[in-house]
Amino acid sequence: MTATMRIGMDIGGTKVEAIALDDDGNIAGHTRTVTVPGTDGILNTAEGIVAELARQTGRAPGDFASIGIGIPGQIDRAEGLVRHAYNIGIESLPLAQLLSERVGIPVTVDNDVTAAAIGAAHLMGLDGSVAYLNLGTGLAAGFVIDGHPLRGAQDVAGEIGHLAIDHLGRPCPCGQFGCLETVASGSALKRFWPGAGEHPGPSLLPAIAAGDAEAQAAFDNLVRGAANSVRLIVLTLDPTTIVIGGGLRQIGAPLFDAIARQLDEWSAQSPFLAPLGLSARVQYLDNDSPAAATGAALAAIR
Amino acid sequence: MTATMRIGMDIGGTKVEAIALDDDGNIAGHTRTVTVPGTDGILNTAEGIVAELARQTGRAPGDFASIGIGIPGQIDRAEGLVRHAYNIGIESLPLAQLLSERVGIPVTVDNDVTAAAIGAAHLMGLDGSVAYLNLGTGLAAGFVIDGHPLRGAQDVAGEIGHLAIDHLGRPCPCGQFGCLETVASGSALKRFWPGAGEHPGPSLLPAIAAGDAEAQAAFDNLVRGAANSVRLIVLTLDPTTIVIGGGLRQIGAPLFDAIARQLDEWSAQSPFLAPLGLSARVQYLDNDSPAAATGAALAAIR
Ligand SMILES: [Zn+2]
Ligand SMILES: [Zn+2]
Repeated sequence: MTATMRIGMDIGGTKVEAIALDDDGNIAGHTRTVTVPGTDGILNTAEGIVAELARQTGRAPGDFASIGIGIPGQIDRAEGLVRHAYNIGIESLPLAQLLSERVGIPVTVDNDVTAAAIGAAHLMGLDGSVAYLNLGTGLAAGFVIDGHPLRGAQDVAGEIGHLAIDHLGRPCPCGQFGCLETVASGSALKRFWPGAGEHPGPSLLPAIAAGDAEAQAAFDNLVRGAANSVRLIVLTLDPTTIVIGGGLRQIGAPLFDAIARQLDEWSAQSPFLAPLGLSARVQYLDNDSPAAATGAALAAIR
Repeated sequence: MTATMRIGMDIGGTKVEAIALDDDGNIAGHTRTVTVPGTDGILNTAEGIVAELARQTGRAPGDFASIGIGIPGQIDRAEGLVRHAYNIGIESLPLAQLLSERVGIPVTVDNDVTAAAIGAAHLMGLDGSVAYLNLGTGLAAGFVIDGHPLRGAQDVAGEIGHLAIDHLGRPCPCGQFGCLETVASGSALKRFWPGAGEHPGPSLLPAIAAGDAEAQAAFDNLVRGAANSVRLIVLTLDPTTIVIGGGLRQIGAPLFDAIARQLDEWSAQSPFLAPLGLSARVQYLDNDSPAAATGAALAAIR
């Protein structure tokens, strides 16, 4: 009998999340572990995950149809290559080939944000076109148009974090000024909010409550950049739904409310924007949703 | 025998262009006429065009498979309805139904910029994904992703002219400030360049040559807005090719060179942008290319 169970992995800067997806698209196994950076760390972790998901689903480790991996960095999907994934210690890694040789299963690598868009559409049962907006360490979007992932001619579709359109004109490591990522991302909080520390998201609301004016400004910038991203996505791709995910969404309701208020304020001032229902198109990914792992599993080549 | 010859029309603010497209996608008839605004004007003109294309292709006026119409305004493709097309004197017009009743041929209406994207991809033989950027009275884009037009959930895909991201923050009739259309469009030239007159494009270069500083500023704004649009399109949809069309492209080589210089300057400052080949993706529509009429013919429902 041919194996039909698929594996999906989401390899991030701090943790690796993985799922096993059965034939009906249901999650049959689920595991999380810390990221061990570098080539050996990544390969050993991935191999361990295959063994764990085999155990959870009662089969031999080689008995999976495919492995799909969502990963940051610059992805060459055709070659299975990951480049410039600095936050996991990778300069260049032929991940698909090396992991496939180890475990005897075909491996596909994918942009992690595109994978999250595919997974969010599946797990949330969203019809039509879906944009996924990642408010994480960086800012980026992934798109699924009528069921088809949009990756682009050079795999930069959705790289809206480096649109240099914010009026503050802050310098970005990419060499431009005013990139959306310089106001609406975890790295922006770390770089431009002196009180931020290593994981700035959770400390933002308490700092605002304590009267920290710089925390308030950081929050306002985050809201403006996120709302700007939503308007931008609607006036380019016009998706049915925009799902916001990423670590910063864990700030929760005060962030969601402020983004909606900004969008509603813009809409109230513009008869052109008003009928587009900007804020009504936004949904938030559940905090524990394995969207990127699930999308990577779905998009893997078998 | 069933009719297979298709008609495409591009109804603009000043002229109507129409073609007959044969089974092989070749243009078998071609006509242009001035736009007569209002319901009767549009319908009479369209009926006259069908007769003229029938004469050119040697058939009865009813002997066409379909009529596709590209038209500005807000389009309801499913209902064949045109709304808010003020520059052709239309508040609301069930164009598909009324014209179809007159000529006995199925009629489909489409966004004129999306139609131009479809037609440009066809006439220029472009593979992959294509964006069409219209520098006309307004600023808007149309997209064809791997052969499929992208219209969006509310038919506003490509409405990048109303992205409020320009640093001048000029007021836009849409109610926002700093829309790309307020710096890179014919309406921007008319509104913000005092010397512009009714058809400002052709007078821009002579005015600059004569030392008109405001003409120079208008040109610089146009270049910045167009280049910003190209960067924006690449970092959202990442198309293989961006075709620039619209009346302002008739300014010609000085405009094309300036847009390429701006894109190359941004790329030289950013290791992220440099490998994306922004300026190399840009092509210009031939001045006499009936792209929108051709695309409307191709996209018509038969
Ligand atoms: Zn940047
Ligand atoms: Zn506007």
